[in-house]
Amino acid sequence: MSANTEAAKSAAPIRIIVLGATGSVGQSLADIIERNPTQFEVVALVANRNAAALSDLAKRLNARSAVLADGRKYDALVEALHGSGIDASAGSEAVLEAVDRPADLVVGAVVGAAGLEPTMAAIKPGRRIALANKECLVCAGDLFMARIRENNAELLPVDSEHNAIFQVFETAQVDLIEKVILTASGGPFRTFSMEEMKTVTPAQALKHPNWEMGARITIDSATMMNKGFEVIEASHLFPVQYEQLGVLVHPQSAVHGLVQYKDGSLLAQLGSPDMRTPIAHCLAYPKRMDVPVKRLDLAALGTLSFEEPDLERFPALRLALEAMKAGGGAPAALNAADEVAVEAFMLGQIGFLDIPAAIEAVLEKLNAEGALTSASCVQDVLLLDDAARKRTREWVDARSN
Amino acid sequence: MSANTEAAKSAAPIRIIVLGATGSVGQSLADIIERNPTQFEVVALVANRNAAALSDLAKRLNARSAVLADGRKYDALVEALHGSGIDASAGSEAVLEAVDRPADLVVGAVVGAAGLEPTMAAIKPGRRIALANKECLVCAGDLFMARIRENNAELLPVDSEHNAIFQVFETAQVDLIEKVILTASGGPFRTFSMEEMKTVTPAQALKHPNWEMGARITIDSATMMNKGFEVIEASHLFPVQYEQLGVLVHPQSAVHGLVQYKDGSLLAQLGSPDMRTPIAHCLAYPKRMDVPVKRLDLAALGTLSFEEPDLERFPALRLALEAMKAGGGAPAALNAADEVAVEAFMLGQIGFLDIPAAIEAVLEKLNAEGALTSASCVQDVLLLDDAARKRTREWVDARSN
Repeated sequence: MSANTEAAKSAAPIRIIVLGATGSVGQSLADIIERNPTQFEVVALVANRNAAALSDLAKRLNARSAVLADGRKYDALVEALHGSGIDASAGSEAVLEAVDRPADLVVGAVVGAAGLEPTMAAIKPGRRIALANKECLVCAGDLFMARIRENNAELLPVDSEHNAIFQVFETAQVDLIEKVILTASGGPFRTFSMEEMKTVTPAQALKHPNWEMGARITIDSATMMNKGFEVIEASHLFPVQYEQLGVLVHPQSAVHGLVQYKDGSLLAQLGSPDMRTPIAHCLAYPKRMDVPVKRLDLAALGTLSFEEPDLERFPALRLALEAMKAGGGAPAALNAADEVAVEAFMLGQIGFLDIPAAIEAVLEKLNAEGALTSASCVQDVLLLDDAARKRTREWVDARSN
Repeated sequence: MSANTEAAKSAAPIRIIVLGATGSVGQSLADIIERNPTQFEVVALVANRNAAALSDLAKRLNARSAVLADGRKYDALVEALHGSGIDASAGSEAVLEAVDRPADLVVGAVVGAAGLEPTMAAIKPGRRIALANKECLVCAGDLFMARIRENNAELLPVDSEHNAIFQVFETAQVDLIEKVILTASGGPFRTFSMEEMKTVTPAQALKHPNWEMGARITIDSATMMNKGFEVIEASHLFPVQYEQLGVLVHPQSAVHGLVQYKDGSLLAQLGSPDMRTPIAHCLAYPKRMDVPVKRLDLAALGTLSFEEPDLERFPALRLALEAMKAGGGAPAALNAADEVAVEAFMLGQIGFLDIPAAIEAVLEKLNAEGALTSASCVQDVLLLDDAARKRTREWVDARSN
């Protein structure tokens, strides 16, 4: 067990609910909780449908309850938890009931649009939300942030880039902040020409240089759409203007984010690519915790390099920046179109450069139809999400036939 | 004029006393004050002996008084200030009288051991001391810090490396701080072999790659003694153990300092080599100011590199670290011996590698004589300073004859 401060040890345990407990963020989180068992009390672990993984995790973390979103998995979960004393439940009602229980911190780590409703429902007065789900801010950022404000809740970013910026963002000095910079590895095709990118295969695109991630986010890194989503998220997380948000390509992924102040100071957070660092930062904030991640050794690394992103070769990043500025439903449609286009690329139906082409065509079409006005509820967002997916599939079908 | 925040504009002006007003820190400070005339009220400007420079500066900054340490310059100063309404005085008594006036902030920027007494005298209850003088902490660190504590005064570091660390040092989380790292350019001989360093000339040593500085500090950068002094200063400024202080060679001097936390986060301050940034940080802290320094453009810079310092080729750094750990009078003797040895090198009396050799011999000799016990007052420090200079001159004479 790591040696944390006396103050942190003696405080009452932090009551946690985890949405998306069996995913990669959930696993990193579990590692931290397991090393600091007296500091945390796990109220509920929520996962989608993997009863075995969820029950194992619930036992490891001594959770009070385990919940699966998929109601058909109820029996399997009850069986897996038999004799553990851990409460089992399943189905979408059970998820909403779980987020309603008294808790100090909710970790929102569901992957995809499925995270929207439960994470939104988890926003309660005075609660801290540690957010790892992308869709909450990309697709429903205005609604999500309004709910955070109305509930006087606190939002902390788990994503490594946003957490890095959060660590060096002096909220009280926001008027003296000039620029907020997210770094991007540039992905596996950073140095490829357009001609070379035309023929890249899914296998090539799945090789991310620094982080191990799921398939979609890895392809999104290769197109740099992922960085575009992150800029959209940053526009909601940090009280700055669109023009103040920048992206810097940094292949070594050692510097995760930077904030430029008007006194000439550029503050940065660096670290090894290990999600336990930003997760621990969210758990302990405004304190910190001792986490056994590999320390970044700059002398061993030797060199850090930086370059401007190329919006010509990476049109997905341009599309994301345009969608951010357009606002309303544009980012939600961008995300949905991207998901379908990436799937189609993975299935060999379209080429790599067709991903941004499909998205651009779909957004133009939806905009012409007047479908990209702002959403007033999550249901509106989900409807737009559906419409964008449908249009993208049509585009893909037309292209591949 | 730069656009600062309304809050900063509307606050009562900060009353400033500047010790060492006509030096390079004083000039940078003057530039900031001139751009923000309503935010500051210059109570007194103190310089050594340049009546013309001081009177010009006093007029530019609308200072209430101007003081020269050299009493023989009184008439020249009175004449230069004639008709300006600015009060003129001179001599060491006048300096002590000046630091006694009501003020919020004292900038201690005298160069050399001459800064010890007036800066120490300037420490008053509740005052902020922005410190740029090296000797206060290197030669009299224990005394200086005791006086800061006794007066409940606040000490802010002006030096770019220490200010960088200060910007990302979370005092409330000191238990979770693992390492405090000062960067070093490595100087003009970073890649030289010992053999090559044997024959370097003063002209070669005076070419610092990134900063424009005085002759002694430039030679101290070439030997890396300057970085050793800075580590000693850091040991007083930051509440960490000696083992937690590190040096990282970084030839581009873009990253000025870093703090490693136990959660794996490495926070850094970067910036262009312009002293106005750290000075403005001290003036505005905990706020910030708008300063027209060139912004650091990482993409334009392209590459940052890092390497461990080589204590074999740069024995001056090793000597400084040893003096820090020995404590007592060792750092004061180190500084005095270094100043004399650097002078002798500049005059061609000894070689470049004789600088650390002289210092090591003198420290050993003084230690054997029992002369390196701790000093209980500034007078003790000045006596030890004298003794070390004398011994070093003896060493130089023996070597050059």
